[in-house]
Amino acid sequence: MHSVEFTAESSSNGVVERDFTVGEVTGALWSPASGSDRAPLVLMGHGGGMHKKAPAMAGRAHLLVTGCGFHVATIDAPGHGGRPRTAHDEQEIAVMQQAMAAGEPVGPIVVRYNAHLAERAVPEWQATLDALQELPEIGAEGPVGYFGLNMGTAIGVPLAAADPRITAAVFGIFWPESLAEAAKQITIPIEFVLQWDDEHIPRQSGLALFDAFASKEKTLHANAGAHKEVPRFEADSAVRFFARHFGRAVTSSA
Amino acid sequence: MHSVEFTAESSSNGVVERDFTVGEVTGALWSPASGSDRAPLVLMGHGGGMHKKAPAMAGRAHLLVTGCGFHVATIDAPGHGGRPRTAHDEQEIAVMQQAMAAGEPVGPIVVRYNAHLAERAVPEWQATLDALQELPEIGAEGPVGYFGLNMGTAIGVPLAAADPRITAAVFGIFWPESLAEAAKQITIPIEFVLQWDDEHIPRQSGLALFDAFASKEKTLHANAGAHKEVPRFEADSAVRFFARHFGRAVTSSA
Repeated sequence: MHSVEFTAESSSNGVVERDFTVGEVTGALWSPASGSDRAPLVLMGHGGGMHKKAPAMAGRAHLLVTGCGFHVATIDAPGHGGRPRTAHDEQEIAVMQQAMAAGEPVGPIVVRYNAHLAERAVPEWQATLDALQELPEIGAEGPVGYFGLNMGTAIGVPLAAADPRITAAVFGIFWPESLAEAAKQITIPIEFVLQWDDEHIPRQSGLALFDAFASKEKTLHANAGAHKEVPRFEADSAVRFFARHFGRAVTSSA
Repeated sequence: MHSVEFTAESSSNGVVERDFTVGEVTGALWSPASGSDRAPLVLMGHGGGMHKKAPAMAGRAHLLVTGCGFHVATIDAPGHGGRPRTAHDEQEIAVMQQAMAAGEPVGPIVVRYNAHLAERAVPEWQATLDALQELPEIGAEGPVGYFGLNMGTAIGVPLAAADPRITAAVFGIFWPESLAEAAKQITIPIEFVLQWDDEHIPRQSGLALFDAFASKEKTLHANAGAHKEVPRFEADSAVRFFARHFGRAVTSSA
């Protein structure tokens, strides 16, 4: 088993950000600057073409750390954030770019390629979680959440289905074809985000993926707007969702 | 024009509660105990068979007053809360109770009867709002919100369509048949609540009513569960919705 190796550290606004590796996997861990008390951990998955410290990741991490005192970890997905691409990665990315340039539907390609990436990413996430839980400020007893939209959902749904350490999750903005079977195995509380006017994901498809989760407690947040127009207040809502389930008051005015 | 006549006053947990009448209409107004600064006003509509100070009304009023410093007003719907019932009210209520006792669908009766009540209630709300805006602590310039589910939506949707003073609203848990036309005229920001497993309102009907609103900014919150199982955290969410649109920070940890 690989352990967490920290490679860089910085600090801003009460949040310590540490780059790390677990074997070949590159990640980032955000933690409260104030102390080393054990606190819940939220794993965050980035979107396609993004990376572990993309602005959405860093912004959500700061909300979760300063709002609730949680630890937040991201890792670069396979072939993302400077991690090496395979020949298969290069080929799928080229096909996707051709479809976009030609104005053809990208959904079937994204669904297929992200399902492939999830097969590689799930064991990487599990090894990363094993290693993070060895850190004294995290430990193996605390609750673990997962928060990821788009490709972060394509990877997160099979991860949550496979790993019982994840006890609450925020998902959304994906097609059901590759994920509904895994979603049917998931019973943890879910908050699910979709865009009501998504130009890529048909409305009934988005609703079908939400419907597939077996969770007794699940909430759909559907906002008017296009695929990339998820409102910023959904990040605040995700913070409150984890605060509610992990028993922490939100201390900011978010 | 009738003015507000206060008939009783009490105070608890930083909130002043005043019963009032505006002509024949009986209402309640909750305000911050701390001061008389002008603040936004949220109108709240109660559900069928309930009244102006039902627990859900008082609970939401306290959240809005203590969380945001807003004023909150409710009125008894026609035939509700001790207000006189007409022969037509008595007849419709008897038909509804028969249907419930027989296990027959109540939806068509609720839709028809609540549409009738809305015709009587909308002018009452408008006269009440006229009178409330004469109070120095409210005034005619501040924003006005509306928050009502079930029958509160059956009355609130035509009210919001008719009265441009209402600039943000939380609706939900109702059928589209009697409301979709009014919803199509509404362009203000909307938060809309529905129950994913509602035994009375078909899922596609609930979604159709959300879809009907012309608002550019609208958010659907759909929760797993039956008709009467709307989670309590939706009240907290409504508070944050009004805080966002009326420019007030939420000061509690809700």
